[in-house]
Amino acid sequence: MKMLSSVQCFGGLQNQYEHQSTTLNCTMQFSVFLPPQAADGQKVPVAYWLSGLTCTDQNFATKAGAQRVAAQLGVAIVMPDTSPRGEAVPDDADKAYDFGLGAGFYVDATQVPWNANYNMYSYIVEELPALIEAQLTVSNKRAIFGHSMGGHGALTIALNNPGQYTSVSAFSPIVSPIQCPWGQKALGQYLGEDQANWKRYDAVELIRAGASQLPMLVDQGLADNFLKSQLKTELLEAVLEETGYAADVRYHAGYDHSYYFIATFIEDHLRFHAKYLK
Amino acid sequence: MKMLSSVQCFGGLQNQYEHQSTTLNCTMQFSVFLPPQAADGQKVPVAYWLSGLTCTDQNFATKAGAQRVAAQLGVAIVMPDTSPRGEAVPDDADKAYDFGLGAGFYVDATQVPWNANYNMYSYIVEELPALIEAQLTVSNKRAIFGHSMGGHGALTIALNNPGQYTSVSAFSPIVSPIQCPWGQKALGQYLGEDQANWKRYDAVELIRAGASQLPMLVDQGLADNFLKSQLKTELLEAVLEETGYAADVRYHAGYDHSYYFIATFIEDHLRFHAKYLK
Repeated sequence: MKMLSSVQCFGGLQNQYEHQSTTLNCTMQFSVFLPPQAADGQKVPVAYWLSGLTCTDQNFATKAGAQRVAAQLGVAIVMPDTSPRGEAVPDDADKAYDFGLGAGFYVDATQVPWNANYNMYSYIVEELPALIEAQLTVSNKRAIFGHSMGGHGALTIALNNPGQYTSVSAFSPIVSPIQCPWGQKALGQYLGEDQANWKRYDAVELIRAGASQLPMLVDQGLADNFLKSQLKTELLEAVLEETGYAADVRYHAGYDHSYYFIATFIEDHLRFHAKYLK
Repeated sequence: MKMLSSVQCFGGLQNQYEHQSTTLNCTMQFSVFLPPQAADGQKVPVAYWLSGLTCTDQNFATKAGAQRVAAQLGVAIVMPDTSPRGEAVPDDADKAYDFGLGAGFYVDATQVPWNANYNMYSYIVEELPALIEAQLTVSNKRAIFGHSMGGHGALTIALNNPGQYTSVSAFSPIVSPIQCPWGQKALGQYLGEDQANWKRYDAVELIRAGASQLPMLVDQGLADNFLKSQLKTELLEAVLEETGYAADVRYHAGYDHSYYFIATFIEDHLRFHAKYLK
């Protein structure tokens, strides 16, 4: 992997890298915040942040204000892109914001032409941690969190791989892509029309099917325009009630879907993960 | 003035407004963070943030992470644009980033065609505070701070109007536009070639000429690519030494010119201003 930039921030380093991904068959960029403790040669734990629709590795890096607390806690943050990229990567015919580039949905696509590149699930679970743990001063202690489509990604990846993550959290997640228009559009094209194949990418279905318990925190703004139509947090609450799966689901009056909401509560999420990463 | 958007953040409101500016002869946008205390009907003091070259009212709002501490301190932050805007506003012939749109340099232009619109000095000193103090729950207690070109703006505006501001601070300011290429290019066109007319817009010259003392804090990164060629902090240090004007000038190893530097030290600046605003 090649370093594209490195900028000092809160005593640590905000770095951007590029590498050739074998899982995604394209050149990918990602960002990493390394806290000051990593410069002392100490292997620090990692929180993986998965962004939402239209984002790149830069949105969270520049807007969330996470570096201050991550530097205090000694936690690295890895910020991947949200889809494969490049001229050779197929995109939505209409360049829609909710499918194709910027909208990988953290699945492994099975349908032509998407299956050649759109394998974000395996990229996040396998390729990226292996690369980062081999090349940076980080440990194999991992937490995972994200926003919106990335909240869906964090929940489903953690529920499918509970031994690999100490904890999971999400802002404004799509809790059940099977039951919302964004999910139906994307999963239908990436995975085909048989919804039986979508269930492993649906947090509500994974909990219903008996996923192992791991520490889980979910924050949702009540002024979020997507709450009723797409995110449907009540479906998560219902399956938690139904199964006895424990999660802290918090609603916040007045907050919307933006990075201003994330910035307001990011400290809570980092402190939540740090408890389990240590 | 018309509200364009209002988003909750750290218990306060991040708002964007539009108004017809009589000083700039165009429609202007600006952003305001109102801390939670303002919603209680309490008139809160205001810190004016002046951004650097190429910025709009959005850069600081989204990247500096200032709302957290401003909410704690009960200080509003006003974020103006960096130049007049609109199709009727003349721009640099080459659309250069360092003159014209996005590069008002916080002066009142005297030269045709710039003098019809490029009056950012009077806009910041007079029109904008009058508008904000009439329409929002803010007091007339004002601090001013900024970055790069906006650091120059903050310093020169405070030095010219010491009774109107309780304190001033700057990140990576252009301390003497008379003595750097950015300043020479912009002031030569906005003000004409007679440098005698530039001195009221040059912090070093204003301090040399006996400006009144007010609390002043300056932060400068030592890995800033513009330090030697444009910012020249050493010229400020020399005139402070020469005149006995008191200012806290701090250098930070490893930090560059970016918002990652601003985010790291913005809490210090807000706490510095809050001491004098209360």
